[in-house]
Amino acid sequence: MIQIAVLGYGTIGSGVVEVLKVNKDSITKRVGDEIFVKYILDLREFPGDPMEDKIVHDYAVIQNDPEVAIVVEAMGGVEPAYTFAKQAIESGKHFATSNKALIAEKGAELIRLAKEHNVNCMFEASVGGGIPIIRPLNSCLTADVIEEVSGILNGTTNYMMTKMSEKGSEFEDVLKDAQQKGYAEADPTADIEGHDACRKIAILTSLVCGQQVDFQDIHTEGITKITATDIKYAKALGRSIKLLASSYQTGDSYCALVAPFMLEPTHPLYNVNDVFNAVFVHGNVLGDAMFYGSGAGKLPTASAVVADIVEIAKHLDENIPVEWRKEKLELADYRQLKNKYFVRTTADKAAIEKAFGSVSYVQAEGVTGENAFVTAEMDGFAYDKAEAELGEVLQCIRVK
Amino acid sequence: MIQIAVLGYGTIGSGVVEVLKVNKDSITKRVGDEIFVKYILDLREFPGDPMEDKIVHDYAVIQNDPEVAIVVEAMGGVEPAYTFAKQAIESGKHFATSNKALIAEKGAELIRLAKEHNVNCMFEASVGGGIPIIRPLNSCLTADVIEEVSGILNGTTNYMMTKMSEKGSEFEDVLKDAQQKGYAEADPTADIEGHDACRKIAILTSLVCGQQVDFQDIHTEGITKITATDIKYAKALGRSIKLLASSYQTGDSYCALVAPFMLEPTHPLYNVNDVFNAVFVHGNVLGDAMFYGSGAGKLPTASAVVADIVEIAKHLDENIPVEWRKEKLELADYRQLKNKYFVRTTADKAAIEKAFGSVSYVQAEGVTGENAFVTAEMDGFAYDKAEAELGEVLQCIRVK
Repeated sequence: MIQIAVLGYGTIGSGVVEVLKVNKDSITKRVGDEIFVKYILDLREFPGDPMEDKIVHDYAVIQNDPEVAIVVEAMGGVEPAYTFAKQAIESGKHFATSNKALIAEKGAELIRLAKEHNVNCMFEASVGGGIPIIRPLNSCLTADVIEEVSGILNGTTNYMMTKMSEKGSEFEDVLKDAQQKGYAEADPTADIEGHDACRKIAILTSLVCGQQVDFQDIHTEGITKITATDIKYAKALGRSIKLLASSYQTGDSYCALVAPFMLEPTHPLYNVNDVFNAVFVHGNVLGDAMFYGSGAGKLPTASAVVADIVEIAKHLDENIPVEWRKEKLELADYRQLKNKYFVRTTADKAAIEKAFGSVSYVQAEGVTGENAFVTAEMDGFAYDKAEAELGEVLQCIRVK
Repeated sequence: MIQIAVLGYGTIGSGVVEVLKVNKDSITKRVGDEIFVKYILDLREFPGDPMEDKIVHDYAVIQNDPEVAIVVEAMGGVEPAYTFAKQAIESGKHFATSNKALIAEKGAELIRLAKEHNVNCMFEASVGGGIPIIRPLNSCLTADVIEEVSGILNGTTNYMMTKMSEKGSEFEDVLKDAQQKGYAEADPTADIEGHDACRKIAILTSLVCGQQVDFQDIHTEGITKITATDIKYAKALGRSIKLLASSYQTGDSYCALVAPFMLEPTHPLYNVNDVFNAVFVHGNVLGDAMFYGSGAGKLPTASAVVADIVEIAKHLDENIPVEWRKEKLELADYRQLKNKYFVRTTADKAAIEKAFGSVSYVQAEGVTGENAFVTAEMDGFAYDKAEAELGEVLQCIRVK
């Protein structure tokens, strides 16, 4: 019997307990031993809950019990998760987490600590919910130089962009709908401003380059400026607008950014709709690959956490190496990236062509009083210069 | 330095050598040691080739060299690959292969042998070319009961179905085009009759259930009966026709089949076009997931083989467990599966409704002299009975 403790009995934590119960037979068969939840740490009581007697309020109970082999963290936030993780690992307990904030900030250190103490620190659920992406990056795509990772990594914003596209609605209306459905939080800032996706691409980029990438260094634009008019233009161009979190190899470093992009129908991410997430990877020998699935939600996320528990249970005496050193990677300026740009402006065509040269104009049904166009491919420095020269820009969305 | 031997210097074998050369620096960094190709086994000479001096014609040279730690097989076919694999593993050498025929037939035995000798037998490239699917099934989707695996697993037929759909061409014309482009072989039987996809779904189903699934037991229909007229109807229904290799959990067993399906636009496999492959997985807690990428081709397939080499090199002293026992799984009758069916017939509507009850009729542009309809959901037994009653059936394609 392998004894575990679950920290936090909220959505993910209770999902982990549920998955272990529902799939007990198949999991026991895979592990070759039973996974037993000994403790659940939560500030609250859960009277009447079947797990009521497992609830403890003091982490020390878990930390001091040598029978607990795996600590599963599903509380969220950097503290006290980080303190608990460190204590667990330093005392020879394995650690699994769904916590992107913790891993984006402390991943390199926890991985190093786990190696030193011959245990494992796993975090599959921290990016892309149920989608297997961390382990595939670490153990499958290892023959390649990864030249691009681009993900739809936030289910809330993808749901909103899908609904805006399907219904022609404005941002504020779709946000209200998402909040009513429970897809967006009362304070939706972390999702709609791209902060959530930013932490996730920081984690993926760190794994791709093997070094620490600080999420604070990643240029991040959200979806708050996307309007129903932009969606009309996207349709006229036969494209969909998606919030992408991307990193690209450039020389010895990487460019990373989070921003809305217009995607063409042949792009593998074009058709990723609603709350689904997907990660597109381009390797120098593999070519294009994509991993698609439920990026959030109680059971899909818990499925990834439990897969980590299974993987740990199969490697109790051994550290599975993960390359993510603490040395910080200095990201290249994101403006080095070359894109086409979709631009809306009140300026006239002569001014547009003076600033941007030859462009492709686009018209959307019922939109008047402005000009809209797609530029030639240009880097961000050239774009900024042309935009400053033009002035009067109503909107600018990168085109991929 | 970790020394390897490559068996077969054809497309995949030379791709493996190329990937190891092109990405030498990043691979050495990941492994923490250099991978060195000591021998290449081939019947031919390669005068002028940079690897000319590595070529040997006798496997015994490789087998008897204790410095060779990993044998990489890229010859294809069950023999002599199986004999070489067995000898290699029994003498403590690790084994990696891209050979689906070998693994579908001998996978369970080679995995057991590898475990006994504390080495690894890896075969990521045997299904889906460069797409990571074997390792994700084995180490990522382990919290779930996998209820369905459906793959577009053959690039040749997917290219042909895509071109038939884009151009409205007939099967024979598209086959000739695929042969000219090198996507189809001079004898295309294994691809177009579904035999290739059948071996691949046998491998995936074996991994999902942990037991031997014999490919000979899997009901297999190819694409040879699909016509330009069927494509017209698919378009009228807003669907695409794809050759799917699928298995579904039913009770304590699985149903498996290879057959063309009409997919609706919201299905994750709908948009998988040209020579791309993808594997759709439905887990009982994960929900839907999909893995997409290059299913064939020299470098993508070699990327997967080299990823196996890297994984082995990181676990030289240890067997990574794979659950695939030799006991044969008795598949359930594929006719237990419930589907809608698209049917074309020369019978009249009264006869159709007498045999099938209420159906949805469909008309395609320019097609006359027949009736076409989509049935309600029914199992294969009920379908066969209704078809026998109707007679005069021109075409039948499952609808998903």
